[in-house]
Amino acid sequence: MPTDAAERIAGAPTESHTGPVTLINCFDVPFGREEAFLELWQQMNDYFRAQPGYVSHRLHRSVSPNARYRFVNVATWISNAHFQAAHTTDTFYERVQQATWAEFSNSPALYEVVSEASV
Amino acid sequence: MPTDAAERIAGAPTESHTGPVTLINCFDVPFGREEAFLELWQQMNDYFRAQPGYVSHRLHRSVSPNARYRFVNVATWISNAHFQAAHTTDTFYERVQQATWAEFSNSPALYEVVSEASV
Repeated sequence: MPTDAAERIAGAPTESHTGPVTLINCFDVPFGREEAFLELWQQMNDYFRAQPGYVSHRLHRSVSPNARYRFVNVATWISNAHFQAAHTTDTFYERVQQATWAEFSNSPALYEVVSEASV
Repeated sequence: MPTDAAERIAGAPTESHTGPVTLINCFDVPFGREEAFLELWQQMNDYFRAQPGYVSHRLHRSVSPNARYRFVNVATWISNAHFQAAHTTDTFYERVQQATWAEFSNSPALYEVVSEASV
């Protein structure tokens, strides 16, 4: 059964949103299936990195044994418009609808940064 | 009733972990209580930023209407040892056990970065 693409895309902001957006995408990955997940994820990431408006990403793997999510991707885009455009192409639908994605459920949402600091 | 500090701290890695760690802390914040949450969060952040080993943070607020978590903090520390040390001081316990925190449940966990890129 193909994966439902709509369930795998962060919801668009309700109001007109013009600044940068950060996707935070939390993945459920069964133990022992990390390599299969990473292969699928990398295929998607190769696509996104080549799209206009992609800024950066960091994929995180949990080291806390009780982590609710074992992988979390944090990716920045220039704008919501760029993010949405990258999620409505034929290539995106082909890749996200692969049956192999069904094993790895995810919770994606878009955010804006409200506090930032570094030493 | 004081908040249980143990429930609010990311679990330590099971194996000896020496590299940098990233805290991803997802918060449930009721609609209309954003300002109260931000005030409490800022008080904790002021403490953490002054501790040895703190590197950086970004606090995110959701713009997707269906976001599972309305606020997510992503903070980097030099090492798990530094992170744990900052979470075992008297000042930390005083601040985290404030009854006002009980309103804002959270899911904290530690991660390591496994893929990173920027354009």
